[in-house]
Amino acid sequence: MKKFMDKDFLLQTETAQKLYFDYAANTPILDYHCHINPQEIYEDRQFENITQVWLGGDHYKWRYMRSCGVDEQFITGDAPDKEKFLKWAEVLGKAIGSPLFHWSHLELQKYFGYKGVLNKRTAEEVWDLCNKRLSEPDMTVRNIIRQSNVTLICTTDDPIDSLEWHKKIANDPEFTVQVLPAWRPDKAMNIEKVTYKDYITQLSDVSGIQIASFADLCKALSIRMDFFASMGCSVSDHALEYVMYVPASDEEIESIFAKRMSGESVTREEELKFKTAFMLFVGKEYAKRNWVLQLHYGCKRDNNTPMFEKLGPDTGYDCINNYAPSSEMADYLNALESCGNLPKTIIYSLNPNDNQAIGTILGCFQDSSVVAKIQQGSAWWFNDHKTGMQDQMISLANLGNLSGFVGMLTDSRSFLSYARHDYFRRIMCNLIGGWVENGEFPDDYETLEEIVKGICYYNAVKYFGFNL
Amino acid sequence: MKKFMDKDFLLQTETAQKLYFDYAANTPILDYHCHINPQEIYEDRQFENITQVWLGGDHYKWRYMRSCGVDEQFITGDAPDKEKFLKWAEVLGKAIGSPLFHWSHLELQKYFGYKGVLNKRTAEEVWDLCNKRLSEPDMTVRNIIRQSNVTLICTTDDPIDSLEWHKKIANDPEFTVQVLPAWRPDKAMNIEKVTYKDYITQLSDVSGIQIASFADLCKALSIRMDFFASMGCSVSDHALEYVMYVPASDEEIESIFAKRMSGESVTREEELKFKTAFMLFVGKEYAKRNWVLQLHYGCKRDNNTPMFEKLGPDTGYDCINNYAPSSEMADYLNALESCGNLPKTIIYSLNPNDNQAIGTILGCFQDSSVVAKIQQGSAWWFNDHKTGMQDQMISLANLGNLSGFVGMLTDSRSFLSYARHDYFRRIMCNLIGGWVENGEFPDDYETLEEIVKGICYYNAVKYFGFNL
Amino acid sequence: MKKFMDKDFLLQTETAQKLYFDYAANTPILDYHCHINPQEIYEDRQFENITQVWLGGDHYKWRYMRSCGVDEQFITGDAPDKEKFLKWAEVLGKAIGSPLFHWSHLELQKYFGYKGVLNKRTAEEVWDLCNKRLSEPDMTVRNIIRQSNVTLICTTDDPIDSLEWHKKIANDPEFTVQVLPAWRPDKAMNIEKVTYKDYITQLSDVSGIQIASFADLCKALSIRMDFFASMGCSVSDHALEYVMYVPASDEEIESIFAKRMSGESVTREEELKFKTAFMLFVGKEYAKRNWVLQLHYGCKRDNNTPMFEKLGPDTGYDCINNYAPSSEMADYLNALESCGNLPKTIIYSLNPNDNQAIGTILGCFQDSSVVAKIQQGSAWWFNDHKTGMQDQMISLANLGNLSGFVGMLTDSRSFLSYARHDYFRRIMCNLIGGWVENGEFPDDYETLEEIVKGICYYNAVKYFGFNL
Repeated sequence: MKKFMDKDFLLQTETAQKLYFDYAANTPILDYHCHINPQEIYEDRQFENITQVWLGGDHYKWRYMRSCGVDEQFITGDAPDKEKFLKWAEVLGKAIGSPLFHWSHLELQKYFGYKGVLNKRTAEEVWDLCNKRLSEPDMTVRNIIRQSNVTLICTTDDPIDSLEWHKKIANDPEFTVQVLPAWRPDKAMNIEKVTYKDYITQLSDVSGIQIASFADLCKALSIRMDFFASMGCSVSDHALEYVMYVPASDEEIESIFAKRMSGESVTREEELKFKTAFMLFVGKEYAKRNWVLQLHYGCKRDNNTPMFEKLGPDTGYDCINNYAPSSEMADYLNALESCGNLPKTIIYSLNPNDNQAIGTILGCFQDSSVVAKIQQGSAWWFNDHKTGMQDQMISLANLGNLSGFVGMLTDSRSFLSYARHDYFRRIMCNLIGGWVENGEFPDDYETLEEIVKGICYYNAVKYFGFNL
Repeated sequence: MKKFMDKDFLLQTETAQKLYFDYAANTPILDYHCHINPQEIYEDRQFENITQVWLGGDHYKWRYMRSCGVDEQFITGDAPDKEKFLKWAEVLGKAIGSPLFHWSHLELQKYFGYKGVLNKRTAEEVWDLCNKRLSEPDMTVRNIIRQSNVTLICTTDDPIDSLEWHKKIANDPEFTVQVLPAWRPDKAMNIEKVTYKDYITQLSDVSGIQIASFADLCKALSIRMDFFASMGCSVSDHALEYVMYVPASDEEIESIFAKRMSGESVTREEELKFKTAFMLFVGKEYAKRNWVLQLHYGCKRDNNTPMFEKLGPDTGYDCINNYAPSSEMADYLNALESCGNLPKTIIYSLNPNDNQAIGTILGCFQDSSVVAKIQQGSAWWFNDHKTGMQDQMISLANLGNLSGFVGMLTDSRSFLSYARHDYFRRIMCNLIGGWVENGEFPDDYETLEEIVKGICYYNAVKYFGFNL
Repeated sequence: MKKFMDKDFLLQTETAQKLYFDYAANTPILDYHCHINPQEIYEDRQFENITQVWLGGDHYKWRYMRSCGVDEQFITGDAPDKEKFLKWAEVLGKAIGSPLFHWSHLELQKYFGYKGVLNKRTAEEVWDLCNKRLSEPDMTVRNIIRQSNVTLICTTDDPIDSLEWHKKIANDPEFTVQVLPAWRPDKAMNIEKVTYKDYITQLSDVSGIQIASFADLCKALSIRMDFFASMGCSVSDHALEYVMYVPASDEEIESIFAKRMSGESVTREEELKFKTAFMLFVGKEYAKRNWVLQLHYGCKRDNNTPMFEKLGPDTGYDCINNYAPSSEMADYLNALESCGNLPKTIIYSLNPNDNQAIGTILGCFQDSSVVAKIQQGSAWWFNDHKTGMQDQMISLANLGNLSGFVGMLTDSRSFLSYARHDYFRRIMCNLIGGWVENGEFPDDYETLEEIVKGICYYNAVKYFGFNL
């Protein structure tokens, strides 16, 4: 029996251990997609207690607590932080097979030096230990990032964002980790939302373009893209319920936009046409700027209306949408390819059943401009666990180019979540090491080093073209 | 090499063996969903031969025989029982990788003490041995249930059922295993069926309500629910081709019902609206009564018309419907949640691709009323095998709360099928034991005992609220 | 650690090794579905260099090269053969986890006696070695087939094909391997194509029937089927984007056909109706002739328009269509069954998520005319790798009759691809051997021999009814 989460955690063979310790463990981290708050980096926040860090905004943990019958008072409610932590510890102790169990213990090991098990019996001890540690000077946000060996972070930002905190960080010589914005223009696309007109007004103000047409909207976005680019942005991100492809004429798009601006709502068909036009526009712009297009789709959000009204979005009430849009995805990419403006693209589906369809779509649009121009993103959100990551990498290896994979990102709101890169690296080294042990790939360590370090870090450096 | 199906069958590690023998093997069985005939329990049927037990109504076995080219005469036809058994033995002998191979041998071991392999060479010997054993007094239906360590059984019953056999069993002091009805009102919902009007007439007679409207139908069902509740029922079950959610006004539902009652058939759209209204009504009623809603969906039934005309339903001609209704499922549960009447719910899809979507839907509707209020049911029907059960539990562990899982049920027409609980427990202990052996969960046997015994039995006791 | 791809490649247990070497390795090959050119067999082509063999038409390899950022010049362009090979060797060296890595090395071992690793460091050496070997007399097309222990090959042929090369091969006493045509009438069905009218004209000429109606089309096809049958054909093949079932009256079908013949295009609904009628017609004809119906579906083709215009079809720009048509598939087979004319059928979906739905559809239509009359085809195209083949066999074992499986086919354009039968056999023996080692099936070698040899070869001989 292997010891519980010791140094060889998830590394089941000698080759896996060698790959991990020789190549993966000390390679830097490039976190090209996350949701952390740059203000907290600039201000170098220090947390008061572990509840703030772990339970302040982590809807993965909230969902799990609810699944264990914990009262909302101890989750997002007004119970004292310590009581929330004790509840969390109690349910975590039984979270067998859950990635939350592994993530939490990796964080306890990596950042707090705690090698034991967190459960109802150890909760008090861990509470004290973590809070003491959090008060130490090397546990500010900046120092957590530094000790995590992170070289670059992309946040997630709206086109109207001033990027003031990114500016301040960039101008601060004491912090050399790059913190770059990423462009997420969902609000400019989601024409069906009640707040759409207000958003367009804000975008008009920020861009200096009075947006009276779809052409104006494109102009305004283009201006903002230039601003984002000037701040180092080269990555976009889109959250789509699912991929659509319903092309329409410019006139039709203008009339849909005009209809919405006049206060009317649009039909489902009009919405799909408008969003298709929007996605074609931004795709072309990204290609011109050599930006990366990230497509996240397959999520049905805010499914619990009473809780949405109470807590708002991103509070743990989303689910996988198992609509299967591989056909629309292929048509969308083909439309961009056909006008010579297909950008580098990373595809993420929340539905793991899409792995193979995505794997085959990639291969239809590769070219010699960059290795693995069209990528399948690392197992996302609900799939961000051992089996999900294995399945994504096996599928990619079967159907595409695993050795060119840009690898892991945290997609997280938490500063401790760099431990997930470690989790990913262990799983990746175990998978590759297993193939070598089983005689399926030669024990040629020159090649293996290139592959492992590439997936950990260097593929992403090259692919995104960051200055590192 | 492990010996063929010895005591450590499917238990690949020492930890798995310890978990199974110390915690799982002797824990009682609560079979909260099956299709056995309560009359046979009351009358304490004794079977004449193994063909009656195994091949009398088991469409899993029939399908397999047909797949091997066996003539229908030896399956559902008029061949003598012994010849049927010999054909079955011959094809079973080659059923490598099939759950039928394991189920049959587990039953031979558990109930007949036969440790060998059943195939064409041993068929005569096994025929004699089983039939001799079946004639012994401890092999009546009641004694099979008793020796299987079953404490409670839920059958599957129509709202118009008199439940007379349940009454007789409850009043018989010699049989202390609880045999409770479960409420399955599919016939009251399936408005598109040619027999619908006749069914409504029967329901009118039984309930004492002259059903002339949907409101009347609801009243009649409510009266019958009260009757079922008085007989100990707290579990419902629904067989849906797929999950629908097409809300409509009361007026519209009434006019659809009236149209159908006048003898007209309804459109597909009307059918979906009516069924949505029906499911909303019963969901709310279950919530009020603290009943459990079981949703079984994803089956396309009776696909072979000539054989359906010959043999009727449930004879081995059903298949998975791979329509993917996660969106409708979320909307349906949200509608109940929004009116404050979401009952405890167990979701089963026949399509194993739905595992992950279901796993994420669960998390949107949990609350503190009970641990894991919304459950994913154990791998159902075509998925009731080693890989299917593993996949369901791994998905549940990744996305929900495995330690709160209510676990296995037989869903069977056979009194020997309690061996499937054993099959499930071995697979579950092997999965959990594997995690412990691999250092993914601590070897903390206090916690492991609670988890394993919980999934075997105690979670279900608490969840359903049975008096045990 | 196992040695890299030694004799026990993929055979992880002693039982697996025994099954492979005693039963599988020396069993003949029946390649019942491929795309090789019979002219090259008749003319006994000898290849000049390994680039011709490997990169001349293999879109699997082309896709992989593109995924690695190789310029099209070195893929389908005018770069010299040696430079193309060097590029291929370089990217193959990093193709960890890809079936291409295994296929290529199996071919190097089997046909070229090369036991090393092909990568950028060994590329020159392998280039020389392979080309020398290809110039030897035992490396002509016929001798490759002979040394591969192939007894029968089915090519893929259009109804208008003259089958002249099949005739010549059949009449050549020096080559005793049977090379039979297979009937692929896609062009006669695809009414939406711009070339449809031209095709109908050609079919009129070849069949001697002036095709002026759908009834005429059926007559012409029937005449051509008779001709194909006279040439030994007993296998058909259909490539469907997805399975459709939209029945319509004869009159409606005739009017759709007439509309198209008049030069008009047809609607999507008309297309589906026409194709349904076409598939019903051919299905019945196959049943009458005791032919096998092969259904390949789930592919969305030619997704990259600029590359399609440059290179044409089958050049590596296809993807999985994840539309899920299990319902239509069941309805289509039921329609044939209901008129008593359901042929032997092999179902292949490009979407691996369909495995389980297909597995359950099979069981609805089996009968005693032949073992496993409705088959799930071996993991196809994008799924033709270790995990894909394992998943297909596990699903088939769970849901159907694995021991009756007709097994592997190459589906290939390459004469070296018989190595894929070896790949399949290793994976199959490892799977079955693993079950035996784990105590899930007895180590009864009489039964195991029958199962393993059956899946390798003898099931297909019996199922197709070839004269072998």
